[in-house]
Amino acid sequence: MKELNAQLDFLPEDNLYHLGLSFTKEELKDNFGDVRFVCMGGTEHRMEGFAHYIFKELGIKLPIGSCLENLSKRSHRYAMYKVGPVISISHGMGVPSMSIMMNEIIKLLHYAGAKDLIFIRIGTSGGIGHDPGTVVVTRQPVNPDLSTDYTLTTLGKVRRFPSPLDQDLARELIDAARQIGLRVVSGDTLCCHDFYEGQGRLDGPFCDYAENDKMEYLSWLHQSGVSNIEMESVAFGAITHRAGIRGAIVCTTLLNRLNGDQLTTNKTDLENWRLNPQRVVAAFIKRTLVKD
Amino acid sequence: MKELNAQLDFLPEDNLYHLGLSFTKEELKDNFGDVRFVCMGGTEHRMEGFAHYIFKELGIKLPIGSCLENLSKRSHRYAMYKVGPVISISHGMGVPSMSIMMNEIIKLLHYAGAKDLIFIRIGTSGGIGHDPGTVVVTRQPVNPDLSTDYTLTTLGKVRRFPSPLDQDLARELIDAARQIGLRVVSGDTLCCHDFYEGQGRLDGPFCDYAENDKMEYLSWLHQSGVSNIEMESVAFGAITHRAGIRGAIVCTTLLNRLNGDQLTTNKTDLENWRLNPQRVVAAFIKRTLVKD
Repeated sequence: MKELNAQLDFLPEDNLYHLGLSFTKEELKDNFGDVRFVCMGGTEHRMEGFAHYIFKELGIKLPIGSCLENLSKRSHRYAMYKVGPVISISHGMGVPSMSIMMNEIIKLLHYAGAKDLIFIRIGTSGGIGHDPGTVVVTRQPVNPDLSTDYTLTTLGKVRRFPSPLDQDLARELIDAARQIGLRVVSGDTLCCHDFYEGQGRLDGPFCDYAENDKMEYLSWLHQSGVSNIEMESVAFGAITHRAGIRGAIVCTTLLNRLNGDQLTTNKTDLENWRLNPQRVVAAFIKRTLVKD
Repeated sequence: MKELNAQLDFLPEDNLYHLGLSFTKEELKDNFGDVRFVCMGGTEHRMEGFAHYIFKELGIKLPIGSCLENLSKRSHRYAMYKVGPVISISHGMGVPSMSIMMNEIIKLLHYAGAKDLIFIRIGTSGGIGHDPGTVVVTRQPVNPDLSTDYTLTTLGKVRRFPSPLDQDLARELIDAARQIGLRVVSGDTLCCHDFYEGQGRLDGPFCDYAENDKMEYLSWLHQSGVSNIEMESVAFGAITHRAGIRGAIVCTTLLNRLNGDQLTTNKTDLENWRLNPQRVVAAFIKRTLVKD
């Protein structure tokens, strides 16, 4: 990681409050020094599922009578699992929730002395011009006006941070997706801070624009190279870039917003599509560990 | 509620996706038409606790062999309980997560035909100039530059919405707090979108300012009438105001930021302080129901 806050070295101990962890810095080194991959997604349920899936895929063994444990269960805020060199952790919805988790996991891995880190966000998203179930590997996260900086207000002043993702990593993930036969595209990912008006939906409690205003905006996004919409990408790009961590975002699309606003697909298809990013990331992690 | 999106009336059905509910509009009327109070807070754990607490306080009876159920358990995103005229629901951390829940609960209560609604956010916060455990009833939510509008980007354009809270309701809550003997203050509440740099902490992974920069900012906030810092207030004020719903925010302070950044208090005190807003809101709800 790049030079982080030097003041951290002078903290006698650091309470990673929202992760609900109370290890000493020495214990963090022992327990987390081997982490290479941090995989994150919205719900605790999904990241618990990914932990069990990658556990099986990597063929990891535990002593009989033991099982994976939610390391953050005391916090009631996130769910975090460690499976060999992989951390599977939830981030909730939206930038503020994800940013708290990323700030604390970066501190944790800094104290642990973890090296060559790769962070991957596994998400769900609305697609623009793609059939539901398509995997989108993000080229560049963008804001609603297509600018690309993450805006953070510090001590009352607005600051901007670029949000690039690792292009080599994106290519490797696209390769991994193709190899396991999934429909995959590369495109820009729009980061919104609101699900209804913020994404131009007509079915929110507040709406003072019409179908044609929405379609004009979505068409403009489509023509500008935006493939999907979610609520975390620009901050994810900026935080990984700032920490010098290779980062990628792999999302499944759950609907094509050019055809409507509501999720009407049956639960079985939705569940299957939700697993696509997990399949891609597991295939990538296995390939990477074999190469090492 | 004020005139909401007229297009909702033409939806044959509405899938409240993030709440994980699939009632018809008729069933919503039958099951939720009597709701008067929506109490919300960050974690599922805390709002489950509040549901059980208000259940006991209101003396509500259930048939033997039945218990309170998390109505949103299918969504894996929020926890939602209905206890007589009270909904207790979690909102996660930060504005985007809370805004999704509020948008969907407003739709739900609109379909249900619920009347005379009161929304109260029960939160934790960093205090400025107050001892930990103090209850703060928000006078006005403010942004980091002390402006008061909620900013929402719709169809790529920035829009601003005022975020006032109901001053009568705030006074009633302060009265209720005093009556049960809690230390309570009224003040402005700063809404940040980041927990570390956004709140001027020195213990985040990134920090390029010093102790005196932080103290200068916190002192300026203190002198300007800011009592506490959390991550949802401006949006809460704007969304309730826009919907014509009476809204209030009751937070406990967990530390005094003028004395430090980290939460170092023991778990017993923290748990006790966390219950203070619940005690105030339960006392207020009981008084209001008696008056009706």
